[in-house]
Amino acid sequence: MTDYDRFLSSTGRQLTESAIRRMGTVVARATDLVSFAPGYPAPELFPWEELRDITASLLSGSDPDTLQYGPTRGYRPLLDAAVGLLSERGITATTDDLLVTSGSQQGIDLIARVLVNPGDVVLVELPTFTGGIAAFRNAQAELVGVGQDGAGINLDELDAVWQREHRKGKTINLLYVIPNFQNPTGQLLDLARRPRLVEWAARRDMLIVEDDPYGSLYFEDVATPAQTRPLRADDPEGRVLYLSTFSKTLAPGFRVGWMVAPPSLVERFETAKQSTDLTSGILDQRVVHEAVKRGVVHALAPRLRALYAKKRDVMERAIRAEIGDRLTWSSPKGGFFIWATLPEPWSDTALLEQALAHGLVFVVGSAFFVDGSGHDTIRLSFSAPSLERIAEGVTRLARAMATA
Amino acid sequence: MTDYDRFLSSTGRQLTESAIRRMGTVVARATDLVSFAPGYPAPELFPWEELRDITASLLSGSDPDTLQYGPTRGYRPLLDAAVGLLSERGITATTDDLLVTSGSQQGIDLIARVLVNPGDVVLVELPTFTGGIAAFRNAQAELVGVGQDGAGINLDELDAVWQREHRKGKTINLLYVIPNFQNPTGQLLDLARRPRLVEWAARRDMLIVEDDPYGSLYFEDVATPAQTRPLRADDPEGRVLYLSTFSKTLAPGFRVGWMVAPPSLVERFETAKQSTDLTSGILDQRVVHEAVKRGVVHALAPRLRALYAKKRDVMERAIRAEIGDRLTWSSPKGGFFIWATLPEPWSDTALLEQALAHGLVFVVGSAFFVDGSGHDTIRLSFSAPSLERIAEGVTRLARAMATA
Repeated sequence: MTDYDRFLSSTGRQLTESAIRRMGTVVARATDLVSFAPGYPAPELFPWEELRDITASLLSGSDPDTLQYGPTRGYRPLLDAAVGLLSERGITATTDDLLVTSGSQQGIDLIARVLVNPGDVVLVELPTFTGGIAAFRNAQAELVGVGQDGAGINLDELDAVWQREHRKGKTINLLYVIPNFQNPTGQLLDLARRPRLVEWAARRDMLIVEDDPYGSLYFEDVATPAQTRPLRADDPEGRVLYLSTFSKTLAPGFRVGWMVAPPSLVERFETAKQSTDLTSGILDQRVVHEAVKRGVVHALAPRLRALYAKKRDVMERAIRAEIGDRLTWSSPKGGFFIWATLPEPWSDTALLEQALAHGLVFVVGSAFFVDGSGHDTIRLSFSAPSLERIAEGVTRLARAMATA
Repeated sequence: MTDYDRFLSSTGRQLTESAIRRMGTVVARATDLVSFAPGYPAPELFPWEELRDITASLLSGSDPDTLQYGPTRGYRPLLDAAVGLLSERGITATTDDLLVTSGSQQGIDLIARVLVNPGDVVLVELPTFTGGIAAFRNAQAELVGVGQDGAGINLDELDAVWQREHRKGKTINLLYVIPNFQNPTGQLLDLARRPRLVEWAARRDMLIVEDDPYGSLYFEDVATPAQTRPLRADDPEGRVLYLSTFSKTLAPGFRVGWMVAPPSLVERFETAKQSTDLTSGILDQRVVHEAVKRGVVHALAPRLRALYAKKRDVMERAIRAEIGDRLTWSSPKGGFFIWATLPEPWSDTALLEQALAHGLVFVVGSAFFVDGSGHDTIRLSFSAPSLERIAEGVTRLARAMATA
């Protein structure tokens, strides 16, 4: 038996696993575990009946291309539909600016491959999405974090970090941000700060990767759609590469996301995608297109907003009732997450160990920090579990914290 | 407006486009073009009715996980089903050896990322699949070709090439081969040569990437399943990384392939896949699993073999009748392709230009050669067009060749 590790490339040796995906594996194996770990959407609103109708009509056999290989760029009517969805978000784009991706994770990965050389610095928020961390690290980027305050990424610190890395002689082309209901903090980047961020990118000759899976999931009691206006909507030079997905607004089982970028870069991403998976699932793309066309996606959005707001309420009330001020957090205005700070002397990993013993899983906060910090934080996803399971999970968390 | 090309990574600058995918774009744009270009499967045997039944039952809503994110490794029952399919091909594997991929293209790409460093030599057949060429080149491999004779890859030449590159101090870990009905040549690697190839890999401490999309599509008049026995079936040290797919045996619209590799490498590929697309489409995987479980895939195989044999007959007869011995080729014993040599003074690109003017597209042979040769060859796919369109396409080819 050979030792195969000696065949690994330097990428192969340094592969970074997503902590969230690892938690997902834990969940899949255990029974009666309450999971606040992965940011899975609420299955109770998957539109089964509409999707049955759509697949039945798509699989009639009248169009053989429904099950054939499709163009790498994406199913043309879906690209057209994405142009419409983008326009509702204030983004002017044509299909020349668009690429369908196999989830927005693939968008991040294509950007990392096409724009990052080994050793380049990529700036990210502290904390940030583990899937972004993994994709950039797997392109052998050096990730450097920039702090957030109550209004999102701190622009002064951003420029100070840029200057520090620039003085070191580093190549710094990309800033990765999640302005709407950030993963993991749930924060909304302040509206006034958005154009300033784009101006900063122009001044420092940077590109911004704007990851926007949650933008339409604002909570109507505390946020407005105007507050979620993408950076890409006010981006005269096209420095913002915008990623979005149907995973949170329809269902993640269809791996359908999309990217907006300058046409010359879209062509590169398309070529890179070609050798990666040829094409995203063509039936998936057609189902998603029909779901947009028939109004399923639009009809779902207010129901999703209401459901997630309700789940947030249930989780926050349960924490206040059962844990009180031992956990502190800023109430999220949208999205899937409560980002909580632990009381002394708890660390995220110690609490996770206790929580697992009590039948609860969440993601340790430190997994989202590229600088090794964050051990006093945890991410609690309220999106997937039912209201009852949210309450049960918080009870288990309270019990786990009572063991200290 | 910025020039975005200056942001490109070295990978981004050197991206290789698949000539086949480029031809696909030509086809999508033109009207009344006969396409012998991409190796698309025959849409007339897509099992629409069975797939409607399957999706209707999967989308009943009884199992919320049907549309949720799934495990990166793959949908467990599909992995189990793949173990069964592999066993029919003589391959003993467990789910620890398996990873579901988004088509086998993703399998090649993951191998390239995890096992190839920039500048490494990857050995390939002359000619070989353009998607393999693109994936390895995009990992910045140096591709070095090894000739084939009438029985497949030439083992003496293989070792001579290995020795030559080894003397240059090159790192050479991988050989990429398509033993069954090779793309583009349609050749079947001689059965006696197969174990010798695996022994050679052990002697030279190499891994073999065995790409097997067409193995079950042998033509019953001229080939037997025994002749398609995978290298991986007789591979005591596990040096063969085996790739297969449902794209040719069910439908490519579901992006579902799979890989067999040593468990320690499968874990690396899984981690790499995680940051690439998180998971292959979960509905797609469940549909494919049901299609295997319900016997749809098995029932389809003999019908596919018969249909493709018939299409081969129609194309060969038409060529003999209309073009005669100006085109020469070895009759394929399975798969999708006729690989033809052109008469002097035709070049593949000159003939393609004439063919396009006559409403026919195919892939130039030189696209499959990593050494710049092959300009006297063309690949004609008979898989996708109807019998009538095959005949019409050959008529157009005859007209194009008459222009010389």
